[in-house]
Amino acid sequence: MICYHARWIAPVSAPPIRDGTVAESGGRIVYVGPRASAPDGEPCDLGQAIIVPGLINAHTHLELTLLRGLMADLPFREWIVRLQQLKTTLMTRERFAEAARLGIAEGVRAGVTTFADTCDSGVALAAMRDARVRGIMYQEVFCPSADPQQVAAAATGLREKLAALEPLETDLQGVGVSPHAPYTVSDPLFALVARSGRPIAVHIAESDAECAFVSQGIGPFADGLRGRGIPVAPRARTPVELLRRVGVLDQRPLLIHCLHADEADRCAIADSGATVAHCPISNAKLGHGTAPLMELLDANIPVGLGSDSMASNDRMDLLDEARIAVLAQRARTHRPDALPATQALHLLTLGGARALGLDARIGSLESGKDADLAAFALPQSMPDADPVALLIFGLVDRRAVLVTVRGQRLV
Amino acid sequence: MICYHARWIAPVSAPPIRDGTVAESGGRIVYVGPRASAPDGEPCDLGQAIIVPGLINAHTHLELTLLRGLMADLPFREWIVRLQQLKTTLMTRERFAEAARLGIAEGVRAGVTTFADTCDSGVALAAMRDARVRGIMYQEVFCPSADPQQVAAAATGLREKLAALEPLETDLQGVGVSPHAPYTVSDPLFALVARSGRPIAVHIAESDAECAFVSQGIGPFADGLRGRGIPVAPRARTPVELLRRVGVLDQRPLLIHCLHADEADRCAIADSGATVAHCPISNAKLGHGTAPLMELLDANIPVGLGSDSMASNDRMDLLDEARIAVLAQRARTHRPDALPATQALHLLTLGGARALGLDARIGSLESGKDADLAAFALPQSMPDADPVALLIFGLVDRRAVLVTVRGQRLV
Repeated sequence: MICYHARWIAPVSAPPIRDGTVAESGGRIVYVGPRASAPDGEPCDLGQAIIVPGLINAHTHLELTLLRGLMADLPFREWIVRLQQLKTTLMTRERFAEAARLGIAEGVRAGVTTFADTCDSGVALAAMRDARVRGIMYQEVFCPSADPQQVAAAATGLREKLAALEPLETDLQGVGVSPHAPYTVSDPLFALVARSGRPIAVHIAESDAECAFVSQGIGPFADGLRGRGIPVAPRARTPVELLRRVGVLDQRPLLIHCLHADEADRCAIADSGATVAHCPISNAKLGHGTAPLMELLDANIPVGLGSDSMASNDRMDLLDEARIAVLAQRARTHRPDALPATQALHLLTLGGARALGLDARIGSLESGKDADLAAFALPQSMPDADPVALLIFGLVDRRAVLVTVRGQRLV
Repeated sequence: MICYHARWIAPVSAPPIRDGTVAESGGRIVYVGPRASAPDGEPCDLGQAIIVPGLINAHTHLELTLLRGLMADLPFREWIVRLQQLKTTLMTRERFAEAARLGIAEGVRAGVTTFADTCDSGVALAAMRDARVRGIMYQEVFCPSADPQQVAAAATGLREKLAALEPLETDLQGVGVSPHAPYTVSDPLFALVARSGRPIAVHIAESDAECAFVSQGIGPFADGLRGRGIPVAPRARTPVELLRRVGVLDQRPLLIHCLHADEADRCAIADSGATVAHCPISNAKLGHGTAPLMELLDANIPVGLGSDSMASNDRMDLLDEARIAVLAQRARTHRPDALPATQALHLLTLGGARALGLDARIGSLESGKDADLAAFALPQSMPDADPVALLIFGLVDRRAVLVTVRGQRLV
């Protein structure tokens, strides 16, 4: 048994504990409470630090980590087109794998223990396994055409990729599927993927351009497809409504972005049991706007925070992502009490675990849960009366001083 | 002569230079250009780093640095009231001075060489002089009542404070005045300060509550003053219009915040020659919203970036402030090309220098200007084809590796 002592413990499911201990044995948490009452065990004293549940990155594209800084300031469709060009011209399978390893290492240094990754090349599963982090890799599939032959070919390709990935699955690293987005996936392919029985993640309701494409069949995505000879017509009132109509929403998918989700959409999401990955930095940087996060939470929809790819975000730093989520919601709502720091930490941990269906095992520090831990040093020069506010708002150096996944130390 | 070599130089007034040199002699910049053509001098090779003009913090409250983390999530008037309580109960002149020293040290570590500080206790001027940083300290003055005796007493108090500060002024550290804000300063006091001949900084058009107070005489600020027996009436169409009416705008003041500045306000500001200190993190965190930064810049108003106090921001990190400015403007305007990284760096340097009237001496790397420099390490693992984008968006560790003020090395 190892006893991690620290000035503060934030179990997330309970209030912070001053001078506390988290004890781990056999990969499980066996004690969370005051240090004075802690069981005997090999001590590891982190001092002026705060121990939190390992952070959960609810949306990444690990394979794109090497494409950081190459696509500044482009309109969204041009950004997507340039990304596809760079993936073809600059990248190989080995470089995608190198990028995934680099992305995981960057995340782990920032306290991330679980990655929900959408991946085209398929390299992220092995990279997560090799790095001994927890995660799910959603194999991406693309086919904007509804032509039956092309849809069948895409489905066959997906089945083959999944068959190759299945032997690599472990108790810690699983496989799902990701029909990429409405402007790259036709209705029949959405419907086929909905019947796959795999966990689903889908980019949805991200941009003005996507909404115009789905609801009216116009805009840059429509023009692009028509230019490739693919017919385009209005498909649904909103992107979320499209997912409902093609049977995806019933499969309780992870909805990535959900920036354009009106009240009817939010009701449909809540009723379906679907969840959301909120990516505030990517949404802002690409000029999409600010998601209605407070309204999603008010509708009791489980929400986690995602960094999105380094091609849009530049950094994988989830404490920073949480801080930006707070700033963006307060600026949007003019409410100075929107998203307090404790709620922001909840999104990074238990919220993310619920969004991924993993909250029985991770997301909070409780006896019996897996020992996925992260710890951060708290600066001596700042008052720590509210350690969670200090964690979210105050840290200049946000590198983790301890990271464990099921008890195994990675930092 | 010292020659600072680095992988990149960003002069701001000219495009970035790869493998460049900034040479300094007698406190002045004597060469900016390729390393290959640099003059002979004592070399200081910063390696994989970028040298930029010293960053300019266009709005601070250095004396409040110790009040970090004590006032989370409060509505604005309650926040202001609590701040005044804490200043009285928790702070002494010595603790204000300690806070100012700590704030300057934090800023310098983040590359700040110039501070535009509004200060109640008056300690910041000596703290800036002792730390050998450049700055202007605006002595704050408060008197919400228009009662002639109270106004005269406030004016006398201000004159005495200025007389005590004048002997401490130097070529690097100057003194101005700051009539705090419309809800703490009456029209006659504004008018008196406008005639002081000193540089002026004023908190203006920051909150919904301030606008309601100025334009309609209602809301929490009005209620608070009426509760103290001070009459309240509508004073002007907008806060900026109030400043014009009382003669402050004509004095080309530094307008702190300017979040609620409509087109007529922006025209009045531009016509007057007044400038703006934009504080995006403080504005977001306190729930005020997002300033119309792009519109202010389109109106050719000089704008600098400010951290505001650590009581609202938690950190003094101007590169982060610039990144948040970009994210906030792109989220607000849905334009992915709003505020490119080069323009964000301009705000931090030449924009701030113009806002403070110091652009003849600092703000860009040019021969003849004072050698106020900051340098930051660029990570080896990221492509540096666009070093300014990397500086603004990509750095995890934003501690400066070199800081000089008029040639004197502080880091």
